[in-house]
Amino acid sequence: MESKKRRGILERLNAGEVVVGDGGYVLQLERRGYVKAGHWTPEAAVEHPEAVRQLHREFLRAGANVIQTFTFYCSEDKLDISGNVTNITGAQINEAACDLAREVANEGDALVAGCVSKTPCYVKSHSEPEVKAIYKKQMDDFLRKDIDFFIVEFVDHVEEAVWAVEVLKTSGKPVGATLCISPHGDMRGVPPGECAVRLVKAGADIVGINCHLDPLTCVRTVKLMKAGLEKAGLKAHLMIQPLGFHTPECNLGGYTSLPEYPFALETRAMTRWDMHKYAREAYNAGIRYIGGCCGFEPYHIRAIAEEMATERGFLPPASEKHGLWGAALEMHTKPWVRARSRREYWENLLPASGRPKCPSMGTPGDDYEKQLESNIPT
Amino acid sequence: MESKKRRGILERLNAGEVVVGDGGYVLQLERRGYVKAGHWTPEAAVEHPEAVRQLHREFLRAGANVIQTFTFYCSEDKLDISGNVTNITGAQINEAACDLAREVANEGDALVAGCVSKTPCYVKSHSEPEVKAIYKKQMDDFLRKDIDFFIVEFVDHVEEAVWAVEVLKTSGKPVGATLCISPHGDMRGVPPGECAVRLVKAGADIVGINCHLDPLTCVRTVKLMKAGLEKAGLKAHLMIQPLGFHTPECNLGGYTSLPEYPFALETRAMTRWDMHKYAREAYNAGIRYIGGCCGFEPYHIRAIAEEMATERGFLPPASEKHGLWGAALEMHTKPWVRARSRREYWENLLPASGRPKCPSMGTPGDDYEKQLESNIPT
Amino acid sequence: MESKKRRGILERLNAGEVVVGDGGYVLQLERRGYVKAGHWTPEAAVEHPEAVRQLHREFLRAGANVIQTFTFYCSEDKLDISGNVTNITGAQINEAACDLAREVANEGDALVAGCVSKTPCYVKSHSEPEVKAIYKKQMDDFLRKDIDFFIVEFVDHVEEAVWAVEVLKTSGKPVGATLCISPHGDMRGVPPGECAVRLVKAGADIVGINCHLDPLTCVRTVKLMKAGLEKAGLKAHLMIQPLGFHTPECNLGGYTSLPEYPFALETRAMTRWDMHKYAREAYNAGIRYIGGCCGFEPYHIRAIAEEMATERGFLPPASEKHGLWGAALEMHTKPWVRARSRREYWENLLPASGRPKCPSMGTPGDDYEKQLESNIPT
Amino acid sequence: MESKKRRGILERLNAGEVVVGDGGYVLQLERRGYVKAGHWTPEAAVEHPEAVRQLHREFLRAGANVIQTFTFYCSEDKLDISGNVTNITGAQINEAACDLAREVANEGDALVAGCVSKTPCYVKSHSEPEVKAIYKKQMDDFLRKDIDFFIVEFVDHVEEAVWAVEVLKTSGKPVGATLCISPHGDMRGVPPGECAVRLVKAGADIVGINCHLDPLTCVRTVKLMKAGLEKAGLKAHLMIQPLGFHTPECNLGGYTSLPEYPFALETRAMTRWDMHKYAREAYNAGIRYIGGCCGFEPYHIRAIAEEMATERGFLPPASEKHGLWGAALEMHTKPWVRARSRREYWENLLPASGRPKCPSMGTPGDDYEKQLESNIPT
Repeated sequence: MESKKRRGILERLNAGEVVVGDGGYVLQLERRGYVKAGHWTPEAAVEHPEAVRQLHREFLRAGANVIQTFTFYCSEDKLDISGNVTNITGAQINEAACDLAREVANEGDALVAGCVSKTPCYVKSHSEPEVKAIYKKQMDDFLRKDIDFFIVEFVDHVEEAVWAVEVLKTSGKPVGATLCISPHGDMRGVPPGECAVRLVKAGADIVGINCHLDPLTCVRTVKLMKAGLEKAGLKAHLMIQPLGFHTPECNLGGYTSLPEYPFALETRAMTRWDMHKYAREAYNAGIRYIGGCCGFEPYHIRAIAEEMATERGFLPPASEKHGLWGAALEMHTKPWVRARSRREYWENLLPASGRPKCPSMGTPGDDYEKQLESNIPT
Repeated sequence: MESKKRRGILERLNAGEVVVGDGGYVLQLERRGYVKAGHWTPEAAVEHPEAVRQLHREFLRAGANVIQTFTFYCSEDKLDISGNVTNITGAQINEAACDLAREVANEGDALVAGCVSKTPCYVKSHSEPEVKAIYKKQMDDFLRKDIDFFIVEFVDHVEEAVWAVEVLKTSGKPVGATLCISPHGDMRGVPPGECAVRLVKAGADIVGINCHLDPLTCVRTVKLMKAGLEKAGLKAHLMIQPLGFHTPECNLGGYTSLPEYPFALETRAMTRWDMHKYAREAYNAGIRYIGGCCGFEPYHIRAIAEEMATERGFLPPASEKHGLWGAALEMHTKPWVRARSRREYWENLLPASGRPKCPSMGTPGDDYEKQLESNIPT
Repeated sequence: MESKKRRGILERLNAGEVVVGDGGYVLQLERRGYVKAGHWTPEAAVEHPEAVRQLHREFLRAGANVIQTFTFYCSEDKLDISGNVTNITGAQINEAACDLAREVANEGDALVAGCVSKTPCYVKSHSEPEVKAIYKKQMDDFLRKDIDFFIVEFVDHVEEAVWAVEVLKTSGKPVGATLCISPHGDMRGVPPGECAVRLVKAGADIVGINCHLDPLTCVRTVKLMKAGLEKAGLKAHLMIQPLGFHTPECNLGGYTSLPEYPFALETRAMTRWDMHKYAREAYNAGIRYIGGCCGFEPYHIRAIAEEMATERGFLPPASEKHGLWGAALEMHTKPWVRARSRREYWENLLPASGRPKCPSMGTPGDDYEKQLESNIPT
Repeated sequence: MESKKRRGILERLNAGEVVVGDGGYVLQLERRGYVKAGHWTPEAAVEHPEAVRQLHREFLRAGANVIQTFTFYCSEDKLDISGNVTNITGAQINEAACDLAREVANEGDALVAGCVSKTPCYVKSHSEPEVKAIYKKQMDDFLRKDIDFFIVEFVDHVEEAVWAVEVLKTSGKPVGATLCISPHGDMRGVPPGECAVRLVKAGADIVGINCHLDPLTCVRTVKLMKAGLEKAGLKAHLMIQPLGFHTPECNLGGYTSLPEYPFALETRAMTRWDMHKYAREAYNAGIRYIGGCCGFEPYHIRAIAEEMATERGFLPPASEKHGLWGAALEMHTKPWVRARSRREYWENLLPASGRPKCPSMGTPGDDYEKQLESNIPT
């Protein structure tokens, strides 16, 4: 399979285009029955390719310009630890995932991003050669296939992300790097602005944030990265792929420290209307690669694409089944539902949880937050 | 395509087996980009068969013993009104949907149910011949294909459901009938017990409730149906396919009267643990056909199958990617997440909404509730 | 001290006047430092008369037409059990309380009601002679002083209330009787309508509900009493003195079964605007003696008097320090506070709790509710 | 009337004693019917001395070591603007208030503090001589009576507070100064640490925070003041008299910007158990003058005194009517209430609001917050 001649990620971003990213794979495929929570490894690319292909297609149809390979946690050391698959190698998953991403990307105008994430090896060994060897091996898997650029994602120590970028840059392909950190900085307290500077100096073409915190908090963190780059006189494109949940309580540790993680997050899920607001905020902050991570389902990505319709000049395919701002409700049989076919209604609605015995905010895991706090200079 | 030799729905229920139903199609496919909210018509069976097939597969994998044809609102009069498709006929959709359901059902030990729902014609004309003609036409579509039994669902006037049952019984196949009513009765105030009696007298083999209200409320309504049948000396199997949302406020009109319907229901979504409780309550009430409707995603159906594992003697395929009661969290990297790998944690958790400016209960559309109330004798 | 010549309670009610009751003493005096929670006995009438006098005055100033003697739980058997006072007799308290009530009542146009409440003896002995002897002793204390009528209050078995009424009627003075029961009936499941009939047949001139449940629920119960009386062809005046807290969860057992009772009820306290709504509902239900019980502070009574200003033809003295519906905010220094000087603002406000980790509804003490439920026929 | 020989405020604080302040007057007297909301002027000292005296007594009985004169907003310019009283002069109120405070203080071991608050003149004229003349006049009223020290309170520009301190120091009496500001600083963005330095340099013996924000936030602000003083090598005693409401939303403007201000704050009221936590935090922060402001009722002050019982060596008089941590519930008639007679129960309770249609957090008045924000350097 070969890539059609299409414009690369940097061409698009350099031209000032809005690039819509795809949504989250592991949480959604967990709910569909193909990923094991706690492990979060992507063996479904080999075991159930039709399920992965279908989710790729839904994101493409929702407006995504990038299809990320379903290769989260797909380093050999992580696969070993999880013990989730014994008869499939990391290389097999990486290669199958590249094929699936390419197949679907070619059904539209999308690019394929080869994705790597943090390694257990980093925390365990703290050895630059060992960690880099792991990233090198995964990169080689990708390079045997046809991908357009790389994304380093879900790394919470900037040092590890820098090592990953340094490896991936040797491929000659563009590299994006997103940390899963809060406005307070990385796990060692390195502030977002300085993280961005280090990543760009290491060669990253695009920097930003993914996962762990809600969209508006992630926008704040990317703004701090941008300010850091400006202060240092550096330039890079900005990207963002936040969590699709309301998580006001976990400013430091991210949503894994919430009591609801990972099996009772339903009530925190964002609506499509929340995503309109997020996309606009991200755009206004100067971010041009706007996608999602855990919790982002296809209709959330469609909401980004619909909010960006004027800037991009078109609606995504899935909008044929979606009236903007609820317009399709105009023909509902109940008059009070018809009355909801307008932007003001949905923008101002404060949705009830239907759970009167539940609080609106929880208490995140204390120890973790405290540990992080002790790393962060105030 | 032809059905393998497998035991029919009545054979299974007569033998005392627990039959796990599938989940909801229209809401889930709306979020995946293939169904238009407000219209809710199933043209995706023709337009995007891969998306419908994949969702069927996920429900099968989650443990469903029945695959329902994706034919909701697929009567010609409803399709005309919605105006959503002009180049596809109802017959084309019905036939494509039968093929898809059969294809997936045959991948496991599942039956195909041909589904009909309420017709606009009933409220408009109130004409028995006209309504019956519509059901007859849809039945004929199904009979050209290979289905195992019929389900009448989402009807809120028992009279219309009776007419549907009378038509479908002429096929010689078993018929299940589920009303979308509350414990207060149907739209004209006919109490659940009497509704059940009328349906069984019309020929229904299985009766129960689907959609519109949350699981535990629907269990209460089915119990009232059961009591009505017992009082009348009648026998029938009981089924239930409730809403997958917490809806404590809409005791009469159902969830369409909630302010969040249909685009901000996220926060009301039930967790998998809520479904364990529901499945157990339904089983204890004597219900043996236990499934879901709008809001039930594959992992909710898996939760039913896991709760019923002892009664059924096996776990569903999708449980290979799911530790019971969170057991797979035992190998999570964070110690406080590992501590959640046990039943007590999830059973007692009161999930927070992360939305401190939102209330926990809303105010349903008043006019509708009042109108219904006036029909219901107190 | 002697009563001025003033019109009696029945003269007023027979003339169709709205009689405003006073508010709750024990909870308010607990917060002021003079009553011991758990005991709830009224020895402050002897120990700290200035504190009781001041609260009487505040209720008078707020518009009350009746000053109730501060004699709650002031039967000898209850005082013995509580062990709260050893050097003061019940007779001393009753007499001191009568003097205080009379002193303040005479400062305005108010009547003095001598109050008796349920006795521990009833549940312990279930002996009519014993219980009646206790009520007789308390009545005699009152008759040595100058009171205008009697109120039996806070009784949850109608049988005991009937006994109390039978005793007090021997005084020749009017008797009002209020039960602390829910719409489901008394502790033995006697429905409100039948309770009212029994009380009126025993001689009660005024019947109704006090304490234990929130205002609108108590209005519902009084309506059931009224319907019972009408069905039986009986006539009596209606009175109501509900709880000043939001208690949607405790339909059976009342607020003592709430987890917040008695030291964390703050968050459930009703606003003055809630009281406007309550007073109007009570009036519309035909109730003409409208007051409050636990949780009603002077400003809540003022709100009743302000809502009833048109019907009564005057405002209470304390309204000189209160603009109707917030009118006095017109001269506030902050413009956004000035904007709140209107009825619509306060009627439509949904006040936030400022407690994002707290739920909106609690779980009442199960055992008690279950025990009661078993007494109530469904 | 003359002061008994008792130890002064500085003697006590210098000796390391915990001084318990009194609670809030204007809000509580508004609810009792003697103060007009929006005006908040203290004419009740003349019009209804018995009401003011009673509230003083309740605070004394609850454990207060200081009785503040009821002279809030009692400068001539404020009284003129409010137009609330025309026949009483500021001097008359100030003098009557001194007599009432002294009368009650002498009933126990309490001191009298003469209180001044911010003047409308400051914002209007910004004239040092004019503002100082107003403070001088009020000081002279106090000096004609017998007071022990001065408190400047409820000032949100440190400059105005400095002017007040400079005037009051000419009396030779000790001066305490509390600002109503947030951790972000005063209305012009002067940080708390610098505010403290300026006040101490102006002569204040005690500095701290009062009103406007909830207790734990006020403790944070006082800590910042303390740090500022330490950095500057200055010494002063610390005091705190915060709001008695949960106000997590109004970090800048304070509770007047909350939608519930001033007539629907009930649901935000703190419990006595919240006050235990607050008193402990304040003590741990090195604050030794610990009282309350708006929302603090007598039982809240008692809670401070009970939490500080070990440090002070005694319980307040009102504790004779209060079992510590609910101990008096041990003799309640209901077993599940008896089970609440222990510290763990009340410390861990998350009280429900009983208002399922209300949110847990509100949106403060935007314009004001924005205006303040623009003054505060980030």
